[in-house]
Amino acid sequence: MSIRRATDDDWPHIWPFFDEIVRAGETYAFPLDLTIETAQPWWMDENTVVLEEDGVIMGSAKMGPNRPGRGAHIGTASFMVSPAARGRGVGRRLAAYALTWHRDAGFAGIQFNAVVETNTAAVRLWRDLGFEIIGTVPGAFDSATHGRVGLHVMYRDI
Amino acid sequence: MSIRRATDDDWPHIWPFFDEIVRAGETYAFPLDLTIETAQPWWMDENTVVLEEDGVIMGSAKMGPNRPGRGAHIGTASFMVSPAARGRGVGRRLAAYALTWHRDAGFAGIQFNAVVETNTAAVRLWRDLGFEIIGTVPGAFDSATHGRVGLHVMYRDI
Repeated sequence: MSIRRATDDDWPHIWPFFDEIVRAGETYAFPLDLTIETAQPWWMDENTVVLEEDGVIMGSAKMGPNRPGRGAHIGTASFMVSPAARGRGVGRRLAAYALTWHRDAGFAGIQFNAVVETNTAAVRLWRDLGFEIIGTVPGAFDSATHGRVGLHVMYRDI
Repeated sequence: MSIRRATDDDWPHIWPFFDEIVRAGETYAFPLDLTIETAQPWWMDENTVVLEEDGVIMGSAKMGPNRPGRGAHIGTASFMVSPAARGRGVGRRLAAYALTWHRDAGFAGIQFNAVVETNTAAVRLWRDLGFEIIGTVPGAFDSATHGRVGLHVMYRDI
């Protein structure tokens, strides 16, 4: 497995699992009507990476400042793991990469703005990696299977 | 005092206090290098309003869904009161307008993502209006006078 900067050529290989994950309705509040064209700017930028193995993209992450200006010393990141590649540590590797990336870039902390409380695998992983739940906005995510559930704000210093 | 939808013609009258407030560095994490042209899309959209009295714009607010898709049932809002008009209830009137607007539009709640903890006037006003502090991200705002201070996530049901 290796992690590298994503290029425009990678997007057609990210889009299928991006779309599958957004449509599943359990983890991300992206617009519901995205296409391969309109979704691209929601995910792809200069700090988007992919994890690949044997030429197959198994996951992707994006990262950068959580806010501009006087909030730019705190970073944030988003992660997508191809459902076909679950259970193989892809999310953990991408998260470790993002932590190192933020540390190297001089950020003071990392904030996740909206971790769905029923996404227990993600919550457990972030806790393992030192993130704490700052608070939970009640009912802020309309989960496809659970209905309205909370969104955690999670944070860790670097 | 009356509150009405903002138009493009209002922007040159909003920009001076927008700029003054952002430059003061106590309340908003907008980019630090905005101009009257580049700031406009950060503030003006179809749900931006102004409060005016005798033809003078004393404050402005913007409001809408906090997230797209499965998060779009929770709203958010931002407020700017002209420093020249402080202490006259402009913020409270704009906030009351925003509450009604969200209620009429069918939102389930309102979330403020980043209330600077040292902005005590705002924190007090939001508490008065029924918002609670969900959590505070430590040191996430680089205040011009206080250094790194926390950003409250605040929320109330509608």
